[in-house]
Amino acid sequence: MSHNTFGHLFRFTSFGESHGPAIGCIIDGCPPGLEIDAAEIRLELERRATGRSRHTSQRREADDVQILSGVFEGRTTGTPIALLIENTDARSKDYTNIARQFRPGHADYTYWKKYGVRDYRGGGRSSARETTMRVAAGAVARKWLKMNLDIEIQGWLAQLGPIRTDEVMEWQTIDDNPFFCPDPDKVAELETFMDRLRKSGDSVGARVNVIARNVPAGLGAPVYGKLDADLASAMMSINAAKGVEIGAGFESVSQMGTLHRDEMTPEGFLSNHAGGILGGISSGQDVVVSTAFKPTSSLRIPCRGLDVDGQEVEIVTKGRHDPCVGIRATPIVEAMMALVLMDHVLRQRAQNG
Amino acid sequence: MSHNTFGHLFRFTSFGESHGPAIGCIIDGCPPGLEIDAAEIRLELERRATGRSRHTSQRREADDVQILSGVFEGRTTGTPIALLIENTDARSKDYTNIARQFRPGHADYTYWKKYGVRDYRGGGRSSARETTMRVAAGAVARKWLKMNLDIEIQGWLAQLGPIRTDEVMEWQTIDDNPFFCPDPDKVAELETFMDRLRKSGDSVGARVNVIARNVPAGLGAPVYGKLDADLASAMMSINAAKGVEIGAGFESVSQMGTLHRDEMTPEGFLSNHAGGILGGISSGQDVVVSTAFKPTSSLRIPCRGLDVDGQEVEIVTKGRHDPCVGIRATPIVEAMMALVLMDHVLRQRAQNG
Amino acid sequence: MSHNTFGHLFRFTSFGESHGPAIGCIIDGCPPGLEIDAAEIRLELERRATGRSRHTSQRREADDVQILSGVFEGRTTGTPIALLIENTDARSKDYTNIARQFRPGHADYTYWKKYGVRDYRGGGRSSARETTMRVAAGAVARKWLKMNLDIEIQGWLAQLGPIRTDEVMEWQTIDDNPFFCPDPDKVAELETFMDRLRKSGDSVGARVNVIARNVPAGLGAPVYGKLDADLASAMMSINAAKGVEIGAGFESVSQMGTLHRDEMTPEGFLSNHAGGILGGISSGQDVVVSTAFKPTSSLRIPCRGLDVDGQEVEIVTKGRHDPCVGIRATPIVEAMMALVLMDHVLRQRAQNG
Amino acid sequence: MSHNTFGHLFRFTSFGESHGPAIGCIIDGCPPGLEIDAAEIRLELERRATGRSRHTSQRREADDVQILSGVFEGRTTGTPIALLIENTDARSKDYTNIARQFRPGHADYTYWKKYGVRDYRGGGRSSARETTMRVAAGAVARKWLKMNLDIEIQGWLAQLGPIRTDEVMEWQTIDDNPFFCPDPDKVAELETFMDRLRKSGDSVGARVNVIARNVPAGLGAPVYGKLDADLASAMMSINAAKGVEIGAGFESVSQMGTLHRDEMTPEGFLSNHAGGILGGISSGQDVVVSTAFKPTSSLRIPCRGLDVDGQEVEIVTKGRHDPCVGIRATPIVEAMMALVLMDHVLRQRAQNG
Repeated sequence: MSHNTFGHLFRFTSFGESHGPAIGCIIDGCPPGLEIDAAEIRLELERRATGRSRHTSQRREADDVQILSGVFEGRTTGTPIALLIENTDARSKDYTNIARQFRPGHADYTYWKKYGVRDYRGGGRSSARETTMRVAAGAVARKWLKMNLDIEIQGWLAQLGPIRTDEVMEWQTIDDNPFFCPDPDKVAELETFMDRLRKSGDSVGARVNVIARNVPAGLGAPVYGKLDADLASAMMSINAAKGVEIGAGFESVSQMGTLHRDEMTPEGFLSNHAGGILGGISSGQDVVVSTAFKPTSSLRIPCRGLDVDGQEVEIVTKGRHDPCVGIRATPIVEAMMALVLMDHVLRQRAQNG
Repeated sequence: MSHNTFGHLFRFTSFGESHGPAIGCIIDGCPPGLEIDAAEIRLELERRATGRSRHTSQRREADDVQILSGVFEGRTTGTPIALLIENTDARSKDYTNIARQFRPGHADYTYWKKYGVRDYRGGGRSSARETTMRVAAGAVARKWLKMNLDIEIQGWLAQLGPIRTDEVMEWQTIDDNPFFCPDPDKVAELETFMDRLRKSGDSVGARVNVIARNVPAGLGAPVYGKLDADLASAMMSINAAKGVEIGAGFESVSQMGTLHRDEMTPEGFLSNHAGGILGGISSGQDVVVSTAFKPTSSLRIPCRGLDVDGQEVEIVTKGRHDPCVGIRATPIVEAMMALVLMDHVLRQRAQNG
Repeated sequence: MSHNTFGHLFRFTSFGESHGPAIGCIIDGCPPGLEIDAAEIRLELERRATGRSRHTSQRREADDVQILSGVFEGRTTGTPIALLIENTDARSKDYTNIARQFRPGHADYTYWKKYGVRDYRGGGRSSARETTMRVAAGAVARKWLKMNLDIEIQGWLAQLGPIRTDEVMEWQTIDDNPFFCPDPDKVAELETFMDRLRKSGDSVGARVNVIARNVPAGLGAPVYGKLDADLASAMMSINAAKGVEIGAGFESVSQMGTLHRDEMTPEGFLSNHAGGILGGISSGQDVVVSTAFKPTSSLRIPCRGLDVDGQEVEIVTKGRHDPCVGIRATPIVEAMMALVLMDHVLRQRAQNG
Repeated sequence: MSHNTFGHLFRFTSFGESHGPAIGCIIDGCPPGLEIDAAEIRLELERRATGRSRHTSQRREADDVQILSGVFEGRTTGTPIALLIENTDARSKDYTNIARQFRPGHADYTYWKKYGVRDYRGGGRSSARETTMRVAAGAVARKWLKMNLDIEIQGWLAQLGPIRTDEVMEWQTIDDNPFFCPDPDKVAELETFMDRLRKSGDSVGARVNVIARNVPAGLGAPVYGKLDADLASAMMSINAAKGVEIGAGFESVSQMGTLHRDEMTPEGFLSNHAGGILGGISSGQDVVVSTAFKPTSSLRIPCRGLDVDGQEVEIVTKGRHDPCVGIRATPIVEAMMALVLMDHVLRQRAQNG
């Protein structure tokens, strides 16, 4: 069962609401002996942080993560690692007007239908603030994968609304702009687009890609723990995700087999339409995943909605929101990739020694 | 852990290789009192069956499923339901030539890298024959969902290679043609395309959609058991799947928030870009999922590959293969939808009474 | 979740009712490369078999186990291993008189309260016949543990009713008598006791002990996957089990700390009150477990009971039953020890490499 | 997988070391709508608290538990409930002398063998301080069970070393003395015994019993999620536990079937040797469990031990320790009972509606 737990052998359980006293998680199953400290985790959190530019929500949190357990004298001990961040910028007053309203496109209505009660402050549990913990836990997984297997994970913005942003890939550019855009020539275009969008009061979707290099062949547990199935679940569990592709993804639909199949030679594969996964198991090629994020529905442009009594109301969302939630998704997608790979490395160790 | 088990409360564990003595599964957690017999399950299996037309593999199996346990006097008892199908048409001689070769685009290489050993007969465990058990278990879930919640699940072929097949939706047409195509005017075009494809020796991908109606609001377990995340995992676990979308899917990338957000009125939602899921929880709208299937890589057209010694060999796959594996995917996609919904109905009952 | 699944990384799921067409199980997670065949598993099943002496139930089954998957060319492949035994001696006519009655001390009443329906033939799912599959799956685990870690597991009858049977331990005696009694001088006494018991129509309890040697230090997953907690669960899940002890067990209650604590020297521990487990983790000492089995309640001596309408009835159980179910428990207890250790070996490999 | 997670549908995951900055847990799966606040949880923690009398460890902690999430406006919301207690009385200086030594009878050696590293301060993760979180999580389960099903759970000290303490049962006495002893006439005897024991520097074991009343029939998930198997695991997972009995327990070994079987009449069962569980499923009778706790091994009386280099050393444990850890076990045993029942109530709701 996994309501709020992700993974099996390297697994983390998160808790916390947007405007509660704190958010946090417990990582269980981390191998002992890994050097890690809070500063390293904070570095990853900063990449995700809201407020990193004018293009994202203006909520500003220090995200001052503390390690409460599982690390002793600078190294993991094999016992659960608890991470905690206190919520310091929780202006619940911003949200009181929606206590009785369901914002369209949000989880307000479905949480209420499911639980009969909801913490309406800032989205409560369904807030994107939960993704902080994915990034924090992912930082631990990522460190282990790098130190032990030299696995490297890199995400980037592939498309923002109508703008395709990765036809030119300059890896070092990705972290030099607020969009995780790999094409330096597209950054100005994105700036302009986002400035106009913000002024219009509307929002837009995005596509974020991620690659993992040096993934050993053999990861993945057929038939119902396939590496690609777990990646699909991981990415789709991120707030606002609506689609996931592995390798050629939906392009496979119109491909012929003679094109799609990745021929093998003693020098390696001749292509990578498979995205590094065959039969649910990694092939040793780069693992490549693409995720679609919808535009946020929290807009100051009014729309029709309901209140808790079923009455129609006009919904206008004020407060701090990202006109493109996909901009901040890159570190989250990277974290989910790390978490899935880490879990499968341990699963592979277990069964295959 | 879920190597070969799918689901949590309604879960099934499958076993069996393509050319072993039998395949089967155990369904655990089915509520007691459901009327079910083997004949009903066989009806679903026939829809999936290979050999239903000249457009699919010519392997012919009776798929004569037996119920070995868990059903007494025509009703489920709450104990595990074991289903078994003997493999009667396992011509292992067809496959001996590939015992030492890795077919590109197949799991041959990755199983060998993972386990150091593989049952090379007909793909062994990675064969699509395993999907028989998904359909069989799905038939039980589907019956329960229909009887208890009136949930209806319908899949269809949305695209086959370059041919978009669902611009016209006539529901009753779907089961009247060998493609699960909902547009009666496209069937002839598909026939012609497939006949040419088969002669050419090549293969092609497909897109299969599925809808579930009458799904109650409230299903889905945030944050790491979201309904959409579980659907993504379910669909991506099917052989040859490379992409999954919920609702608007990748179209969300270029949509504006004012378009995407599904406004609510007392009469209901005004659109369904969300695909029936908000914040990982069903909204009461139709749940809509689309899955991309790659073209099979088993072709009689030669390609470059390796043998177990790492030597380059020319790979030519003879034997019985589907030029478009997506054609048979419709009943499988329906089954996975049923299995996910069933599991979440039980999860919802558990936590929310 | 684990209704009918035992274990996590090496896990098996069983199915089948006493008088259904077959019983069986799926073992998932077995490492590849283990040499195993059905004949080896049958050897273990024979030790458990009913009808091995006049002191146990006269039901006679060939227990002709078949391997349906997961073994190829004599070795495990890493994919699920399905085992099947057809029920050949299911005389359901013996049981028809109890279709509407609840036998005291049996699961008849509780299954009916839980599920609202039950397969009343021979105890249905609650029959001890299910333990066949524990022994079968345990045989695979046991073989792996022996081949890879030289772990040896031996059970024995420690007490039968009033007769303490292991004050003298002669290991080679255990398999030379129908009681698994390690004291050759007690066998005649047991024979006499059991003959009288059988004639009297009554039944009696038993205590069965088991030791595992060469268990490496480090197995066990604190805090909620402790080795002793998993052993306790494993043994208590066996039909008729009512108590479990690790090492000194209930004697610890009146022991002083200076006695109980097992002092360590460079030559090893000076005692083993801990039963080989400290803090939930194996210490490298022998792992020692003791399990209490109640007397069967199925007696031809009448007693007061209820029928499905809540009316009082006199219950007289005819048919084939063991006057001491504990006699057959030794191979089952050994199997559960093997299954727990195997799972923890894989868990240890996963987290600690 | 359950290294540090207990339960399936109502499950909690704990973290924290004895001398780290904090301990805590996440409860996932709690039904929404339960009224709960930190004060109620603190009441349960006080019953367990060290330092409640001169007979237990002198470590004094406020155990000032905070609720960090999952409760909104005084009610559970269905989302994860995080509980946190800061460690305020962690005098790590007490323990520095054992940084390189393995205390016999403790987890020092086995953690080191398992992980290759350990937090040696105060037992680290293996400290009984972890049980605080069991009691805290148990308080939530207990409240729900009481409010919704009127289930009542009561534990007591049944034996302390040589002193049997429950031959007279006066329920209201249990919470009126520092031993949870139900016999008012035995309290003085216990006082005297413990005073002498403390002066002697030795320690002693104990037996703690627990009863749950008003448990509905039908709880328990055969075959590998039996209620008794889960209770056995729950109790054996408590620090220092060495044995578990359900109902008649080890007395069953010498009982005859005519005695043991609990006859049924329209007025109810005539006895309860089964301890309220038949075939792994609750019968509606009281559920009765007994647990044996070993004497602590941390004594100021020297003994032989090893250091991390394998050299023999004399071990003398100073610091604050309980001469009978079983004294504090009663609230823990009650908590584990509540957690197991709560999980099974939800499991029963899921499968059987």
